Amino acid sequence: MDFDLQTAVPVLSRTPEVLDVLLRDLPSPWVSRTEGPNTWSPYDVVGHLIHGERTDWMPRAEHLLSLGEAIPFPTFNRFAQFEASKGKSLSELLDTFRELRTDSLRRLSALRLTAVDLGRTGQHPEFGRVTLGQHLATWVAHDLDHLVQIARVMGRQYTEAVGPWRKYLRITEPA
Amino acid sequence: MDFDLQTAVPVLSRTPEVLDVLLRDLPSPWVSRTEGPNTWSPYDVVGHLIHGERTDWMPRAEHLLSLGEAIPFPTFNRFAQFEASKGKSLSELLDTFRELRTDSLRRLSALRLTAVDLGRTGQHPEFGRVTLGQHLATWVAHDLDHLVQIARVMGRQYTEAVGPWRKYLRITEPA
Repeated sequence: MDFDLQTAVPVLSRTPEVLDVLLRDLPSPWVSRTEGPNTWSPYDVVGHLIHGERTDWMPRAEHLLSLGEAIPFPTFNRFAQFEASKGKSLSELLDTFRELRTDSLRRLSALRLTAVDLGRTGQHPEFGRVTLGQHLATWVAHDLDHLVQIARVMGRQYTEAVGPWRKYLRITEPA
Repeated sequence: MDFDLQTAVPVLSRTPEVLDVLLRDLPSPWVSRTEGPNTWSPYDVVGHLIHGERTDWMPRAEHLLSLGEAIPFPTFNRFAQFEASKGKSLSELLDTFRELRTDSLRRLSALRLTAVDLGRTGQHPEFGRVTLGQHLATWVAHDLDHLVQIARVMGRQYTEAVGPWRKYLRITEPA
């Protein structure tokens, strides 16, 4: 499937509400448990999505459009949420993510990007040359990837509870 | 995490709305594409969830409570949706799933299950003895498993579009 804004934006615009419906006010083990050491809880993931809105998606798009390949994007900190989320409730994080995503999509829309713009290039600190279209497609896939992760982390909490069904549910850990 | 109704029901009750927010009126490639031959689209998955409400979750719970281990559960048809969904729009399927889930949870609540009830046993046609608690935990994990699947199928459509990010997104196919 090729990237285009008309199919991509409806996915991006729904993510805050999907996460809200899935997670807000759930009994806390669902949102605070992980898949083991050095893995993330749903709460951690929401913090990571917030950090992406603040430093990655629209900031890098704007960077690419104004600087092209002249200056690589700043690197992204995948662990920023462990500091930034401290003391915040999941509800606060969900509210913040929604506000930031709304603002991101307003900025994206204001750019009135054309097909030519989507082919414009920037410098990724690791990958080298990337197009704006690839960056924006990654934004969508990244949302979906973390939705996969949240649902998987939740489901995995029932690895033992499902008994013999464990062997058929891809979400539980292999026995 | 042990199974109990107080933590499980909030997840079960949200699934219809999560899928509604994620899928209703999305541009059709997101809901109709699969991961390749003999894999399911998000549309197919919603049909499968409907069939589960009709023939698996509460029907098997009621079967177990009334018949114990005397008669195994009827087998479940994992492909029923390919016939049953024919001619129906995704919106119709989402509406049907929501109605059926609401009814299922009403029936579950009416049973006023105790911890002793959760340990009662039935005969699974393949696994043999299973407890009601295992069956109900599987209902929750099955919802989450299919949410994983839907988000993964969607994200996979951008395997090419994300360019070099493919190597870091678990959701895209390995290059």
